[in-house]
Amino acid sequence: MVSAAIARENGFRLFALTIDYGQRHRVELESAKRIAAHLACERHEVLPLDLRAFGGSALTDNIDVPKDGVGADIPVTYVPARNLVFLSLTLAWAEVVGARDLFIGVNALDYSGYPDCRPEFIASFAETARLGTKAGVEGKPFTIHTPLQDMTKRQIAEEANRLGLDTGMSWSCYDPTPEGLACGTCDSCRLRQKGFEEAGLADGTRYAG
Amino acid sequence: MVSAAIARENGFRLFALTIDYGQRHRVELESAKRIAAHLACERHEVLPLDLRAFGGSALTDNIDVPKDGVGADIPVTYVPARNLVFLSLTLAWAEVVGARDLFIGVNALDYSGYPDCRPEFIASFAETARLGTKAGVEGKPFTIHTPLQDMTKRQIAEEANRLGLDTGMSWSCYDPTPEGLACGTCDSCRLRQKGFEEAGLADGTRYAG
Repeated sequence: MVSAAIARENGFRLFALTIDYGQRHRVELESAKRIAAHLACERHEVLPLDLRAFGGSALTDNIDVPKDGVGADIPVTYVPARNLVFLSLTLAWAEVVGARDLFIGVNALDYSGYPDCRPEFIASFAETARLGTKAGVEGKPFTIHTPLQDMTKRQIAEEANRLGLDTGMSWSCYDPTPEGLACGTCDSCRLRQKGFEEAGLADGTRYAG
Repeated sequence: MVSAAIARENGFRLFALTIDYGQRHRVELESAKRIAAHLACERHEVLPLDLRAFGGSALTDNIDVPKDGVGADIPVTYVPARNLVFLSLTLAWAEVVGARDLFIGVNALDYSGYPDCRPEFIASFAETARLGTKAGVEGKPFTIHTPLQDMTKRQIAEEANRLGLDTGMSWSCYDPTPEGLACGTCDSCRLRQKGFEEAGLADGTRYAG
């Protein structure tokens, strides 16, 4: 949400892409729809791509989401090659509609250590995109914008506040309760809560317990 | 088919991935199933990913497949970022099953000029894959094998013959007739026919007219 709002603030027209990859936290998809409508995206595609066929992640497979805090290792919530798949699909759509600017809200400061959130991955992807597309070889390459890349979670919370965003619209939790409340204990909840606390701002998320 | 048979000849276990991306030449999917069974692949996943949501190609959209011969420009049969999307998904599955070797049958000699068939694209993808995956950052990077990369279509036909493959099993045509015959006039048919003719080998494909 913050990434898209920054794109809009910078004068970009918004085409939003959400991948329904079979994530267990389905509430994320509803959140995406609300945000796309709120930010007045010209189009919002929800593309089904059932990565449960591959499995191998706590987000798509029958593996428990860890609750013991953010550690040094890449956790089981890592979805193999997810951001590469997401960016590749975004690139495909961008080339069709004639867009040259892709925005993705990756962050590599307060994060879970996912390799596909790091700037070196993003830079390499941009080069691969240039070499692998008609637009790229015709000298009209794509720019991958990562406005949150170097922000702490505190700074992202402050940015959301500055942009006047309703943080209750966005979703972070990997393991919501059956009632649709955020668990408050997965990595994603912990990192989010830390950010809002440090910023001294209210988090619109409804947490369990 | 030739690429997979070469992988098998080199001692690799075969896990085959076919993407059902809404291609108009649906017969390709049936061909993939026959080949996977024939080559005794341990698994064959047919993953639905409906790229018709994006459109923009003669293979997925309501755009005529050109029949006027292979030209210098990238034709409208180009599907934006297709091989990047395919390779990204293959990478995701490979990481889950613990595979480190990906095979793709791209060819950049007798081809339609698609940017995502060129060796520089493949090399860049391999680097992006290394940077964007858990396996890659843990020092277990992926190898992208392109055994057909530098072959002419004639050499590919000869290779199929050497491997004892039934070329009637494979499919190239972008615009089959309603009866399921190859059109014989699209780029893909022309390049295939040229290869078999130059090799002096019979092409098992059934052509219209």
